[in-house]
Amino acid sequence: MGRWEPNARGRLEQAALELFIERGFEQATVTEIARRAGLTQRTFFRYFADKREVLFWGQDALRELLVSTVASAPDSMAPLDAVAAALEAAGAVLQERREYARRRQAVIDANAGLQERELIKLASLASALADALRRRGVTDPAASLTAEAGIAVFKIAFERWINETSPPDLPQLVRESLDELKAVTAGTRV
Amino acid sequence: MGRWEPNARGRLEQAALELFIERGFEQATVTEIARRAGLTQRTFFRYFADKREVLFWGQDALRELLVSTVASAPDSMAPLDAVAAALEAAGAVLQERREYARRRQAVIDANAGLQERELIKLASLASALADALRRRGVTDPAASLTAEAGIAVFKIAFERWINETSPPDLPQLVRESLDELKAVTAGTRV
Repeated sequence: MGRWEPNARGRLEQAALELFIERGFEQATVTEIARRAGLTQRTFFRYFADKREVLFWGQDALRELLVSTVASAPDSMAPLDAVAAALEAAGAVLQERREYARRRQAVIDANAGLQERELIKLASLASALADALRRRGVTDPAASLTAEAGIAVFKIAFERWINETSPPDLPQLVRESLDELKAVTAGTRV
Repeated sequence: MGRWEPNARGRLEQAALELFIERGFEQATVTEIARRAGLTQRTFFRYFADKREVLFWGQDALRELLVSTVASAPDSMAPLDAVAAALEAAGAVLQERREYARRRQAVIDANAGLQERELIKLASLASALADALRRRGVTDPAASLTAEAGIAVFKIAFERWINETSPPDLPQLVRESLDELKAVTAGTRV
C-alpha cells in the first residue's frame, strides 16, 4: 500500500490518542494504531519513528515558529518582549487545538517517560530561543536567562489554559503570565 | 560483610564518578564501582538503588534545604526573595564541591538519559518550591511562576559556575543571575 492516503498523519494521530487514553500509552501498539486509522504499519512508520513521536512531532514546527518570530521582531524590541511575541504566536497556533492538547496532556501526565520527553522538549525550545536571541546580539547570561524565563512563562500559561474551565485564549494567558513574572520580579507581590 | 564501612557512600560516589568518566556511564557496572571502592555490591545497594542514583542521591537533601529555607523566611519577604534565599543556601552547600560538581556535570552532559533525569530533578525542585510558597499563602499562578523563574535563575548561575574559569562563588552568581532576571523583565536590556 504505497499509495497516498488522505490526511494519514491526522488519522494516525487521532487513532493513537484514542488508544493511549483507552488502554494506556504503554499498552497501545503501532499495529492497533494503524488498524484503527485504517492504515498500514508501513504508513505509520512513514510519518513517525515510534508511537511516542505521535505526541511530539509538532515540536520542530513549534521551534521554527519561535525562532523565526524572535528573528523577525523589530530591532528595538527588548529580548523578553521578542520572546513573548514568539510564545504568543505559538499560543495562537495551539489555540486551535485545545481539545487535542488537553487529551494529549492527560496521556503525558499518566506516564513518567512521556513527562521526561516533554521536559526535554521544553529544554530544547529554551535552547533554541536563547540561540535566536544571541543572533540578535543579546549576550549571555541575558540570552539564556530570558529564554528560560520565557519558557517558564509559557509553561504556566499552558497549564492554566489546559486546566481552567473556559480559560482566556492561550496568547492572552501568555501575556498575563508575562505580566505576572514582571510583577513577581519587581517585588510587588508579597 | 554487614559491618559498617567508614564513609562508604563517599567512597562509592568517588569510585563511580571515576569509572563514569574513564569508561562512560553506560559501560561502568555496579560490580566495578564496588570493587574500586573496596566494598561489596551489597554495600553499594544499601546506599543506592542503581548506578544512576549515585549522581542524584543529593536531590532529597537539596529539596529539603530549599523548602525549609523558604518556610523560615520572614513573612515580610517577597516570594522571589524567599526563593532566592533558598537558592543561595543551596549554592553555599554546593560551593564546597565545585570539582565534584564539574565532573558530575561532564558525565551528565555525555548521556541523554542522565540529562533527562537532571531535567526531572529541576522540575521536581521547582514543584517543591511552588508548594513551599503556597504554604506561605502565595496564590497561583504567582507561586508556580516564581518557583520556575527561581529554578531558571539557578540553572544559569550553575552553568556559569561550572563553565567559567575562576568564577565567583555560586551564591554570588545566584544573586547576579537574579539581578539579571530583574533587569530582563524590567525591559532595561535591549
